[in-house]
Amino acid sequence: MPDARPAPATDVERAMRLAIDESRRAQGISSPNPPVGAVILAPDGTIVGRGHTQPPGGPHAEVVALADAGATAAGATAVVTLEPCNHTGRTGPCSRALIDAGVGAVFYALDDPNPAAAGGAQTLRDAGVVVGAGVGADDAAAGPLRAWLFRQRHGRPFVTAKIAATVDGRIAAPDGTSRWITGEPARRRAHRQRAILDAIVVGTGTVLADDPALTARGDNGELGPHQPTRVVMGHRDLPPAAQVTDGKAPLCHVRTHDPGAVLDALDDALWVLVEGGPAIIGAFLDAGLVDEIEAYVAPVVLGAGASSVSIPGVATLTDAHRFSPAGVEELGDDLLLRLTR
Amino acid sequence: MPDARPAPATDVERAMRLAIDESRRAQGISSPNPPVGAVILAPDGTIVGRGHTQPPGGPHAEVVALADAGATAAGATAVVTLEPCNHTGRTGPCSRALIDAGVGAVFYALDDPNPAAAGGAQTLRDAGVVVGAGVGADDAAAGPLRAWLFRQRHGRPFVTAKIAATVDGRIAAPDGTSRWITGEPARRRAHRQRAILDAIVVGTGTVLADDPALTARGDNGELGPHQPTRVVMGHRDLPPAAQVTDGKAPLCHVRTHDPGAVLDALDDALWVLVEGGPAIIGAFLDAGLVDEIEAYVAPVVLGAGASSVSIPGVATLTDAHRFSPAGVEELGDDLLLRLTR
Repeated sequence: MPDARPAPATDVERAMRLAIDESRRAQGISSPNPPVGAVILAPDGTIVGRGHTQPPGGPHAEVVALADAGATAAGATAVVTLEPCNHTGRTGPCSRALIDAGVGAVFYALDDPNPAAAGGAQTLRDAGVVVGAGVGADDAAAGPLRAWLFRQRHGRPFVTAKIAATVDGRIAAPDGTSRWITGEPARRRAHRQRAILDAIVVGTGTVLADDPALTARGDNGELGPHQPTRVVMGHRDLPPAAQVTDGKAPLCHVRTHDPGAVLDALDDALWVLVEGGPAIIGAFLDAGLVDEIEAYVAPVVLGAGASSVSIPGVATLTDAHRFSPAGVEELGDDLLLRLTR
Repeated sequence: MPDARPAPATDVERAMRLAIDESRRAQGISSPNPPVGAVILAPDGTIVGRGHTQPPGGPHAEVVALADAGATAAGATAVVTLEPCNHTGRTGPCSRALIDAGVGAVFYALDDPNPAAAGGAQTLRDAGVVVGAGVGADDAAAGPLRAWLFRQRHGRPFVTAKIAATVDGRIAAPDGTSRWITGEPARRRAHRQRAILDAIVVGTGTVLADDPALTARGDNGELGPHQPTRVVMGHRDLPPAAQVTDGKAPLCHVRTHDPGAVLDALDDALWVLVEGGPAIIGAFLDAGLVDEIEAYVAPVVLGAGASSVSIPGVATLTDAHRFSPAGVEELGDDLLLRLTR
């Protein structure tokens, strides 16, 4: 590799932002594998290839990006959000693919914490490839890899609880009417989020009361290519005509009230959204199984009707679940508050 | 007035921002008169005087600013947030005072909508003073004069309802504990706001349950110079030892559940804050007497306990009270959502 020189640092940083963007397209479809993005950078700074992790059994991000780059990969720099894997699973090791393509340098954001897959960086170095780690590490860890990293560390999916309520915390009027408390921009965001989730959890009560479809739909109502698993928890039977049984997305009915048992049933899931009702969200909170809250607040006051979260055991203020603010977003007339542990 | 030339437009705009700032110091103390600010601008752009409306019977903003400027007022430009008054009430007309001081030009933000006081601009022009209206009008109308303008138009005080609750809309745990759901920065802001309010309304239930002082206190707990009237509504007697009876601020116990009757009892009030409890806020909403909501949201989930607003008659979603978002502010870990009609 006589002309293999690593790309300049500013080019690599820019490419890493592109690789993180590219990895968003793998969210949801890559599970249980990490949603990774890769970019191939020619010595003159041109992007000559990009790719993201394909569904299990398909090629990883590096292999897709190398194929995209073709012969220009020789002597180029590969920029990847996660350390290239070193093991032969359903696909060959990415470290080998990068060496075979003749890349001169590899920069990645995060080390692979999985011992079975790690070692890719060393294999690359042993083959004479320049290797740099840690570029854009914070952005990559907070981005699409967040849930996968969480699962590696904690052995369970990352759980987001979603609330959509009035300023006084109501999710429905006393007669059960709840359409629409939040506006169109908030609902659109919820659908975009479904397209990158692994599973959505609701209780049998929500299915019986609201008959939600829980599918990821586009702005014109069309079904998206990826659908999260619809998880219904609770002992009651589902009505045969319930929308969740329509086959448009996987369905998993878990006959339990134990949030831990629900997560155990979701082997491959990285990111799970708990949508309700109030008792289901309360049960996950009570079990310490809520890692993030997304609270949509509409500029509306109801003054009566069910509150967004119900936890029977709570008696005094020290029983409260305290979170840290993680940002606020305006969505039309509504606000989205993000809270983390 | 041979050397009387109006100040340049940029100087006048800058001076108007200062005059609006100055007028904030009149909020609360000027009622029922408008909280006005005035600045005297020398021909070279120097600020040579400033002042704000003093308590009823005391001088108006223009007179204070002229006194501050002394002899340098001759030939200077006066910049005032409201059209100088033309009538002799407890004080002489400000238009006369400006003419007597020899100012060459007067710029003001808003016309006086009160027929008894209006006409100041014409009087000034008749005396040969250059007069400009409308400078900074939007900022002045949204600023300290907002409540006074509202009262002129609607014949009642501007009413802000304050909510301080968890993300799920709870203001207390089932055992009544509520200290502290929101953090120190939110509580400090609430005290700074009390210092410029005319009245705070709570129900007898809040007095009996929480025994609040409802005073405006500084960061070290010291009483501020202006205290809003503490208004308690409801039929029950107040306990003799209740803090609201301690004489540190005026007290008005209105034995009614009718929000309209409460506002009628507050002749001189421009800006009233309704603090609770949930049924009191609900009653004001139900009566169409809430012009603004300030909702403090803490990053906390309770899952049980009283909700922030209670309206017995609400049955279905179309009964909801819809507001428009008017801004969001971070106060430590809490958020403040402002909603207007």
